[in-house]
Amino acid sequence: MKTEIISIGNELLIGQVVNTNASWIAEQLNLAGFWVDRITVVPDKSDEIFSVLHEAEERSSAVLVTGGLGPTKDDITKEVLCRFFETRLVFNEEAFRDVERLFKIRGVKVTDLNRKQAELPENCITIPNPNGTARGMWFSKAKNNRNTEFVFMPGVPFEMKPILLDSVIPELIKKFRQKSIYHRTVLTQGIGESFLSQIIEEWENNLPENISLAYLPQPGIVRLRLTGTGDDKTNLTNQVEAEVASLLKIIPEYFYGFDDDKLEIIIGYLLKKKSATLATAESCTGGYIAHLITSVSGSSKYYKGSVIAYSNEIKENELGVSRESLIKYGAVSEEVVKEMAEGIRKKFGVDYALATSGIAGPDGGTSEKPVGSTWIAIVTPEKTIASQYLFGEGRDRNIRRTALQALNILRKELL
Amino acid sequence: MKTEIISIGNELLIGQVVNTNASWIAEQLNLAGFWVDRITVVPDKSDEIFSVLHEAEERSSAVLVTGGLGPTKDDITKEVLCRFFETRLVFNEEAFRDVERLFKIRGVKVTDLNRKQAELPENCITIPNPNGTARGMWFSKAKNNRNTEFVFMPGVPFEMKPILLDSVIPELIKKFRQKSIYHRTVLTQGIGESFLSQIIEEWENNLPENISLAYLPQPGIVRLRLTGTGDDKTNLTNQVEAEVASLLKIIPEYFYGFDDDKLEIIIGYLLKKKSATLATAESCTGGYIAHLITSVSGSSKYYKGSVIAYSNEIKENELGVSRESLIKYGAVSEEVVKEMAEGIRKKFGVDYALATSGIAGPDGGTSEKPVGSTWIAIVTPEKTIASQYLFGEGRDRNIRRTALQALNILRKELL
Repeated sequence: MKTEIISIGNELLIGQVVNTNASWIAEQLNLAGFWVDRITVVPDKSDEIFSVLHEAEERSSAVLVTGGLGPTKDDITKEVLCRFFETRLVFNEEAFRDVERLFKIRGVKVTDLNRKQAELPENCITIPNPNGTARGMWFSKAKNNRNTEFVFMPGVPFEMKPILLDSVIPELIKKFRQKSIYHRTVLTQGIGESFLSQIIEEWENNLPENISLAYLPQPGIVRLRLTGTGDDKTNLTNQVEAEVASLLKIIPEYFYGFDDDKLEIIIGYLLKKKSATLATAESCTGGYIAHLITSVSGSSKYYKGSVIAYSNEIKENELGVSRESLIKYGAVSEEVVKEMAEGIRKKFGVDYALATSGIAGPDGGTSEKPVGSTWIAIVTPEKTIASQYLFGEGRDRNIRRTALQALNILRKELL
Repeated sequence: MKTEIISIGNELLIGQVVNTNASWIAEQLNLAGFWVDRITVVPDKSDEIFSVLHEAEERSSAVLVTGGLGPTKDDITKEVLCRFFETRLVFNEEAFRDVERLFKIRGVKVTDLNRKQAELPENCITIPNPNGTARGMWFSKAKNNRNTEFVFMPGVPFEMKPILLDSVIPELIKKFRQKSIYHRTVLTQGIGESFLSQIIEEWENNLPENISLAYLPQPGIVRLRLTGTGDDKTNLTNQVEAEVASLLKIIPEYFYGFDDDKLEIIIGYLLKKKSATLATAESCTGGYIAHLITSVSGSSKYYKGSVIAYSNEIKENELGVSRESLIKYGAVSEEVVKEMAEGIRKKFGVDYALATSGIAGPDGGTSEKPVGSTWIAIVTPEKTIASQYLFGEGRDRNIRRTALQALNILRKELL
């Protein structure tokens, strides 16, 4: 079977909006075992929408369309749908009750325009939209002894996502009787894609044929997604989990979590479990570690705060770094980063503290300490440890890699 | 004329990579006065690439293709190109010298695979790639008394962008003789799109027909892009700038810059000009202001650092906020945020200081101080001012809006 995605919207064709909907839908379909053969973006114009539907019908069994719905865009798209599916608009009681219900919650009066929104093509199955007034629509169209399934969803991600996940994908699975699919994503930090692929090469080459591996790299992180397909869900789950267990034995020092885990959430969970508190002292990361930690709701329960010491004077006065160390070893050194971490721990009266000092770039590098040179220190109730890294070029990347590395060092100490 | 973009790459069809290339190209074409009619994504498969080229030829005058080039993907794409353009691969001396030159810089040896990369279709014009080994290719194909221009570029953004900007767009302009285009983007902060559109409604309605306006909203910021088209570049420039001047008179308090300006860069420039220094004391923004400021290279010249006070205890001990204020008014109050700003200014010995305190959410709101309630204070050499905001739901949005608002308050004080 062939599957394709069509995105309708002028905003996508002038570069105003990046087509994240299509990527997200492709990813969800892929996770459900469907391969997307094509993505097409067309403007809010009748003839363009009609053409692309016609073309899609010729080649695909399932066509997922987003956009072109909602009070301001309905007119064009619905007219095209009636023409393409040879039908007419009829007033849909259920859809109208949805609109009334939603407007009541928002305390807004239903207008004639909203009433018109409840007029839907007669020969489709409508799909409830829990977050909006425009229902999804599902059409089956037969041509040349073959059926094509067309699904129309609103373009607002917040409305589209539950429609796709709760209604559309389950129905596609039922209709196209896919085998069972099982995914597990192993998250790693502190190792690049190419080195990682070398050390897991043998394991990867011995994976059974029904399990595939995808490398999904991000700055500072590489995600490894295992996807298994099989007839029996339980056997498949056991089989994939056994491969995951073997993988973890090879890379225990880089593994930090599964699937959607985030380091800043994991360390929050571990700190709460221990009833422990944390503070940070940041130089090169300039507040980015604090930003990650405080992006988690409820982080004030374990995070006391930070001193961002962007000058030697602040390192000395606020964190108690000795002038001698600053002069003798420089700000980017083992001694200074340890003193920073110990200083903030004492000052803020916390159990754990992290400190960073490095040359984020693009300026400030020397032959001895090139751009990317970074020290990270952690102080625990028992000890102080500092480690050195050489990350590379790119200010943003260096800041991000340092922050993730620091959070992972903390995670390991908390375990 | 019709213009379209084709993106080749499996990674775009499994949701691994978002198609930012297509958005960026669409935006650049739009800025140059070309409207993109369609974007298509196809996999790295010969028959799919051949089909989409054939379809594009039927409808468009200019077809911009990215991806499918480079050492690992060349084989498939080049075979398709030879078939589609009815040509053969020939060794291209110039392209090979590019490869040699680049490899010499990198200190890597040229392999047979690289030599193969210099084999290019005979009937195309090749385009230099300053950042990589895969040259761009330009084909003109005649069919049914009409020419279609096909341009192929590598998919790596860092390689594609200079090829598009320096070679492709100038050539498209020459070929399709567009009128002059002139853009000016006015950046605003601290006002939502709908309220902004109300206060500039009259001005907008009186814009001459050859000038259009686009609203480009982001969290905390609305960009207003004016695009003029005309025959004479100088007249057009004067005409657009006159409209910009009228606009600025209506929204002086929200305007902060033009085009690609960023608040964190502007305040850095203004502080350096004044030889002044800055520090911050952050509660609800949790380091995000510090992160924005230190994302600018060279910021250590004017930014001393921050105390992130995520608990009342730190506000009291480190920033000298009085216990009385904390008990009487609460942490999210005018008194406390002013004391935070004054405390950090004194402590870090700087000229200017910013402080934030608010309820970022989703928890922590009360009927009196709902989620989104925020205080921002600034201390200058002359005075201390605090302002109150009610932003709304969404932790990330609230953090971002507070940070941008604070930077804009600082910008205004520096002027």
